Amino acid sequence: MVCELISVGTELLLGNIVNTNTQFLAEKCALLGLSMYHQVTVGDNKDRLAEVIRAALKRSDIVILCGGLGPTEDDLTKEVCSEVMDFPLVEDAHTKGRLVEYFKNSIYKQITDNNWKQAMVPDGAKVLDNDNGTAPGLILEKYGKSAILLPGPPNELIPMFMNQVYPYLQNLQPEIIRSQMVKICGVGESRVEDMLLDLIDKQTNPTIATYAKTGEVHLRVTAKAASEEEADKLIKPVVKEIKKRFGDSVYSVKEDETLEMAVVKLLKKLELTVTTAESCTGGMLAARLVNVPGVSDVFREGFITYANKSKRKILGVSKSTLKKYGAVSEQTAKEMATGGVFATDADVCIAITGLAGPDGGTDEKPVGLVYIACYLKDNVTVEKYQFKGDRNKIREQSVVKALDLLRRSILDNYR
Amino acid sequence: MVCELISVGTELLLGNIVNTNTQFLAEKCALLGLSMYHQVTVGDNKDRLAEVIRAALKRSDIVILCGGLGPTEDDLTKEVCSEVMDFPLVEDAHTKGRLVEYFKNSIYKQITDNNWKQAMVPDGAKVLDNDNGTAPGLILEKYGKSAILLPGPPNELIPMFMNQVYPYLQNLQPEIIRSQMVKICGVGESRVEDMLLDLIDKQTNPTIATYAKTGEVHLRVTAKAASEEEADKLIKPVVKEIKKRFGDSVYSVKEDETLEMAVVKLLKKLELTVTTAESCTGGMLAARLVNVPGVSDVFREGFITYANKSKRKILGVSKSTLKKYGAVSEQTAKEMATGGVFATDADVCIAITGLAGPDGGTDEKPVGLVYIACYLKDNVTVEKYQFKGDRNKIREQSVVKALDLLRRSILDNYR
Repeated sequence: MVCELISVGTELLLGNIVNTNTQFLAEKCALLGLSMYHQVTVGDNKDRLAEVIRAALKRSDIVILCGGLGPTEDDLTKEVCSEVMDFPLVEDAHTKGRLVEYFKNSIYKQITDNNWKQAMVPDGAKVLDNDNGTAPGLILEKYGKSAILLPGPPNELIPMFMNQVYPYLQNLQPEIIRSQMVKICGVGESRVEDMLLDLIDKQTNPTIATYAKTGEVHLRVTAKAASEEEADKLIKPVVKEIKKRFGDSVYSVKEDETLEMAVVKLLKKLELTVTTAESCTGGMLAARLVNVPGVSDVFREGFITYANKSKRKILGVSKSTLKKYGAVSEQTAKEMATGGVFATDADVCIAITGLAGPDGGTDEKPVGLVYIACYLKDNVTVEKYQFKGDRNKIREQSVVKALDLLRRSILDNYR
Repeated sequence: MVCELISVGTELLLGNIVNTNTQFLAEKCALLGLSMYHQVTVGDNKDRLAEVIRAALKRSDIVILCGGLGPTEDDLTKEVCSEVMDFPLVEDAHTKGRLVEYFKNSIYKQITDNNWKQAMVPDGAKVLDNDNGTAPGLILEKYGKSAILLPGPPNELIPMFMNQVYPYLQNLQPEIIRSQMVKICGVGESRVEDMLLDLIDKQTNPTIATYAKTGEVHLRVTAKAASEEEADKLIKPVVKEIKKRFGDSVYSVKEDETLEMAVVKLLKKLELTVTTAESCTGGMLAARLVNVPGVSDVFREGFITYANKSKRKILGVSKSTLKKYGAVSEQTAKEMATGGVFATDADVCIAITGLAGPDGGTDEKPVGLVYIACYLKDNVTVEKYQFKGDRNKIREQSVVKALDLLRRSILDNYR
């Protein structure tokens, strides 16, 4: 089945916002085994919207429209789509009731009349309740085609899609599609592809898709079968083989588990606490750890020592080390990590010092040079990197490598 | 003139990456005064790509295509566009020479034959040199229409567009278009629009566009005129009026100046140093400051005190304060900010403590409650916020408010 995405909104045509809905929906549609050949963005204009909807219904089986469902005059998606597909609009008592309830709890006392237009739905359409806003989603079915209308704000669209549209699309499919994520850190994308070349070349079912992230590669293994059990049976040996090839570089096989979550889980399991000593990353590493709810069990404090004097005063890096080797050196990284453990009660300290640029680079120490150290069990491991990219890219890569060094150091020491 | 964007790449249809090029190009086209009615994404498929290009050339004056210019067999944009517009491909000696040069300096010794296809260009096309990759950009002109072909990677596309395409598009326009940014912090988007309603309602030239960012609103004032001087003359009184209405809430009128840059600039000007004391934001505030190259003049160190014990030990928050008022309280925020100044040589300390969730909220202290304190000149200002959104959104908003509190406190004290 062919699916097409239409994003509606003049703000997209003006470049006011990045269209993240399209990426989200496209990934989920691929996961459902739907083919996608076109994604179109059009403004809040009746004629052009109608033309785009007509073209999409002609060439695709499922058309997902995002945006333009709100209460204002600019919001035309429902009206135009109903007209193109010839559905009259009628008031939906259920949606009207939900709106009354919503506004009763609202801080806004004056509910303008245009809000009630959101209770009008195409006669015969499936109504998708919106738990995070006022505009309901809609599914219109005719001529063996489906038009699915979703609200534009991601916090409304994502839960509505996952809870109500995903199961609907799954039901339309003759086969069951299941997938399993494998997340890899510490191996570059082209190396990952090289190491899987034989599997990728002969793949039909399951398939392996690679997604490159900063410092990480995610693999999605997807199988089609008549039942969930059969699909899982197809996936299992492939995931096992990938895990065998990549060993410790696989940090998670869970869809929603981030690298920092995997690290925090590992620390919790071994009852270890960690502290951070950051220079060029300036708090980004600690912030990544604090992304994880419940991190307080393993992370109590961290230090940002940007100036040399702060490295000395807070972490006890020696004056002679800074003078002899400089702030960006293996020796300084080592002393920062050691100092972090001694300044706190933590079992582990991860330290980062580097040149994020754009200025300050030399032939000997170019911009992008970063040292990352991990103190664990009276032992410090230091890694040296030469990153490419701008200031932010260098810092982001440093943080991923630091999280990965922490993870690997623990695995190496507690097994 | 009407401009249309076509993104080419199966990876976009599969949702492997977010399409940020479209937002970048759409914003720049709007800035150039070009109208945009359609943005289309299509895969690496000859027939569908040809169909999409034909439709675009029919309804638009300028068609910008991104992606599909590389050396592989999947890269079809140049071949298909040349065929649709009837341009024969010929070898371009200049581009060939650049490729030879590029590969001479490359770490890859084996240059596969398919790379040379990048030296083939449509006969009569303008060639745009690519300083960050191997695929040149192209401009094909025919029937009063222009097709502009750009490489997909943003680090190649952005400089090529800004240096070579932007001036080309500017020349196509009969009028000069100039714009001025006004960046506002501390006033919500709807309030900003309310305060500008009379200006926006009567606007024709210049126009005012609003862009909502996390905790900020950016306004772009754009004027069309026969000369740069005339355009600037139209913009000046409008910017002056906006500045008058928003006062200190305007933190910058520079396109590329971020909030943290404005804060660091202010600190430098007054020769003040700052330190940070963060709980729920876990280093995000310091990381924002360290985004700014040269921050070392004003920021030497910062603390992440996530645990209560760390707040006591590192910042000297009193045990009784934590016991009586809790970690998320006005009193704790105050003592954190004070402690930060006393633990360092800094003139100013900004402290954040809050409940980022998802767990740990109570009726009295719900998730999203955040206190931000600023110690400056023996005086502490504390602000209380109740933010909405998930853990990350709450933390991001906290950081913006903290940077803004820091900025306003300095302005209030040194003027």
